[in-house]
Amino acid sequence: MRDALRVPAGPVVLAGFDSSARPLAPTKRNRDLANDTARMRDLQAKLWAESTAGGTRSVLLVMQGIDTAGKGGVTKHVVGTFGPIGVQYTGFKAPTKQELRHDFLWRIRKRLPGPGVVGVFDRSHYEDVLIVRVHDLVPEAEWEARYDAINEFEKELVDNGTTVLKCFLDISFETQRDRLLARLDDPEKHWKFNEADLDERARWSDYEVAFEAMLERTNTDHAPWYVVPSDHKKYRNWAIGELLHETLEDLAPEWPRPALDVPALRARLAPPH
Amino acid sequence: MRDALRVPAGPVVLAGFDSSARPLAPTKRNRDLANDTARMRDLQAKLWAESTAGGTRSVLLVMQGIDTAGKGGVTKHVVGTFGPIGVQYTGFKAPTKQELRHDFLWRIRKRLPGPGVVGVFDRSHYEDVLIVRVHDLVPEAEWEARYDAINEFEKELVDNGTTVLKCFLDISFETQRDRLLARLDDPEKHWKFNEADLDERARWSDYEVAFEAMLERTNTDHAPWYVVPSDHKKYRNWAIGELLHETLEDLAPEWPRPALDVPALRARLAPPH
Repeated sequence: MRDALRVPAGPVVLAGFDSSARPLAPTKRNRDLANDTARMRDLQAKLWAESTAGGTRSVLLVMQGIDTAGKGGVTKHVVGTFGPIGVQYTGFKAPTKQELRHDFLWRIRKRLPGPGVVGVFDRSHYEDVLIVRVHDLVPEAEWEARYDAINEFEKELVDNGTTVLKCFLDISFETQRDRLLARLDDPEKHWKFNEADLDERARWSDYEVAFEAMLERTNTDHAPWYVVPSDHKKYRNWAIGELLHETLEDLAPEWPRPALDVPALRARLAPPH
Repeated sequence: MRDALRVPAGPVVLAGFDSSARPLAPTKRNRDLANDTARMRDLQAKLWAESTAGGTRSVLLVMQGIDTAGKGGVTKHVVGTFGPIGVQYTGFKAPTKQELRHDFLWRIRKRLPGPGVVGVFDRSHYEDVLIVRVHDLVPEAEWEARYDAINEFEKELVDNGTTVLKCFLDISFETQRDRLLARLDDPEKHWKFNEADLDERARWSDYEVAFEAMLERTNTDHAPWYVVPSDHKKYRNWAIGELLHETLEDLAPEWPRPALDVPALRARLAPPH
């Protein structure tokens, strides 16, 4: 799956990606798509167990995508198969005043996954070259310098044992319209709706430019980008599940095997008689 | 369930609690016990949704119990039905050197649930009147003062909108033996075994005294204790699930209902022409 979805090096033109495609899907029916969740749970539990014996490896799933792209859905349906032990979710909102007083990575560092943890970023440090760039929230020289800063930051993470899995959830302009209309149709989903979302939608092409720059300039060997076609929700969940599964298989975590003197311990525990 | 498991005011004698009891269980078969997880998920999602609209309420499940009592099992099987969005798990280990340089509540405060979050403490600030007391890790005057400090701390949490649900997972000496032996029988569970666990087990009666003092002296109206009979794993999970369910029903969270001008928003989204 990683080979199929990895962004090739060089310039990125999102129009060249088909958000309704289904690369590697083994069946034509979206509802048939299923990850091997038992195996994934097993691997995640082992990664966590390793950390209790001194292991320091971790995984960080970074999800970016326009509103309604499905970052929450992936969290619920894919990440929800894990944990909760050893899983840490963070949804990054507009930074607080306190956060704005610090470097843009300050609040990110506070939420990095510890040893053995699968961390999930629903939005991330990339907002600082996305919404910030689209709305000119800082001078160009400042956001321009962030691409290199992000690459260095992620290199530091990788060098410290974190596998960084970056997914861009790609949906079409029409798909977003349909999903926003669906939110309006359901009063129980009105809380997810914000009129400002439509103002963001009006800047679709500005966001495309910012996404393209992100996908091109932070597509490193140590932390490559994957573009996940996300018009089909089931496909999107399955594809990101497969990416996570492959990532965990590569780490190949194992149950720690402490050197226990089992007969002696059993003797200490045996019932008196 | 809260009425059935709540610790009565006054002196606590754990020998008077039956760890194999099944209060309120609607059937005689443990495997038939099931929470209404769909409803619980709905309530948890609404609590989280409320926080996105300014709500500040949260829930903190505190679990204490001797090794193998099932704090991890409850997290996996009960808390695992929620989230991961809006759920935060923390397993407290022996404090680090940095943590020891601060007040005992310092590391606890850093992991308190934010608005809308269901926080889970697998061990907690109560370790500072349990293992610390049993092993004389600080002078008696110091741990003695902590009961009042904890009551004040929890009052502060409750006043700030956190419902504190404190569960003591009660198992018998024999149940712990059986579970430790089971860990020895399964090489995949050896990582959970620590020879020091047997030294702790040898201090069972010291722990009973410390548990009794905890249950008596921090059993406040704002944050009462529940003793959950935990010899039967299915019963334990069900009972804590019911406690959580009742807690969430009492909060009665609702989907936020922002005042949206739906026709106008729909018009902005409608396809051209």
